[in-house]
Amino acid sequence: MTTISESSIFSDIVKQRRSAMKFVPGVEISDGELEQLFSMVKYAPSAFNLQHTDYVVVRDADLKHKMYEAAYKQYKVQTASAVILVLGDKHAYRNVANLNEGMLHLGILSKQEYDATVSEVTGLYESQGDSFMRDEAIRNASLSAMLLMLVAKEQGWDTCPMIGFDPEAVREALQISDSYVPVMMITIGKEDASKQRPRGYRKPVGEFVHFDGFRGK
Amino acid sequence: MTTISESSIFSDIVKQRRSAMKFVPGVEISDGELEQLFSMVKYAPSAFNLQHTDYVVVRDADLKHKMYEAAYKQYKVQTASAVILVLGDKHAYRNVANLNEGMLHLGILSKQEYDATVSEVTGLYESQGDSFMRDEAIRNASLSAMLLMLVAKEQGWDTCPMIGFDPEAVREALQISDSYVPVMMITIGKEDASKQRPRGYRKPVGEFVHFDGFRGK
Repeated sequence: MTTISESSIFSDIVKQRRSAMKFVPGVEISDGELEQLFSMVKYAPSAFNLQHTDYVVVRDADLKHKMYEAAYKQYKVQTASAVILVLGDKHAYRNVANLNEGMLHLGILSKQEYDATVSEVTGLYESQGDSFMRDEAIRNASLSAMLLMLVAKEQGWDTCPMIGFDPEAVREALQISDSYVPVMMITIGKEDASKQRPRGYRKPVGEFVHFDGFRGK
Repeated sequence: MTTISESSIFSDIVKQRRSAMKFVPGVEISDGELEQLFSMVKYAPSAFNLQHTDYVVVRDADLKHKMYEAAYKQYKVQTASAVILVLGDKHAYRNVANLNEGMLHLGILSKQEYDATVSEVTGLYESQGDSFMRDEAIRNASLSAMLLMLVAKEQGWDTCPMIGFDPEAVREALQISDSYVPVMMITIGKEDASKQRPRGYRKPVGEFVHFDGFRGK
């Protein structure tokens, strides 16, 4: 048992995290605060530990304005402390040898296990092709993005995940290569709680959890 | 300030959650424990609060064996307390009127706002078409799945997210309609920690976070 601040309790963070509707303007987020955030985000799981997710943090005023335009002028983009683009790497599997080299050198993986991993992972992605690579980019980047939103809440920040933006405009403004899928835009800042609505309705567990076979439509 | 168990501290949960390699056989997970789990999972955010995610929990021995076969006979499927299929609903947007009705009746949404929401959300998904609907299914179900794995850890369960399975075999065994994408398989149980490897290598923050423009390949 230990004494800690209530704000650190897992279930409270989950319940308190809500998509921010409006941010307090003029709040800055520092390099140090972002480092603290992402140093927890890296614990997200990913398929074969390929770490498919990259983030672009936009704080520069001109670039932020371009994100605002790309997001169809949603006001919260203007007032957020930063706009974070979540990118999924379709070609993360090409990094498999590199990512496992440390485990090989530490003797955690034998040379045989290392070679098998490299060959199996490469074979899987290449045989399944571009559509699977794209699914994987979206899937793994979204796992990471959920962790980011929870970690942000624990560290005193509010977020809003957004899909209403033109991915090609974002790609151009930030010079994102074709290997990456812009999976989500996340605005981060301090919520203006005076504009808060009641939490959105959630379906009861019995409506979205099914046992031993699907009971959906 | 409050006194709580260390196991409830947010940052500990994030660090302690690891993909289980092997489960202790014969451990059961009850209806009550699953209810407790999913009653927290429902707090996951989703685009337009459409709640795209459905779960199928498989505990029945015959069906579990089918999941084992569909997952290319990965041993951990056999020893898991349950196998959970994470499904994303491509047609979640068709439920938009229904999901917002409560907010209308409570007066949180005016009739005008309600009508605008229904029309905008329907218009967005229908104009973007099947590929966007599929992306949305994967994206939103993955957000939910990440929360599930963290909540499971907090409630004393270990999980392993899996993508190595034949989605069509799963679809057939569980009678999942074409509206749903099988996004991920998650095995849940108590990890046999004697088989634990060191945590997989993680890239340093500077390698996956970029500022004001992409610096990737």
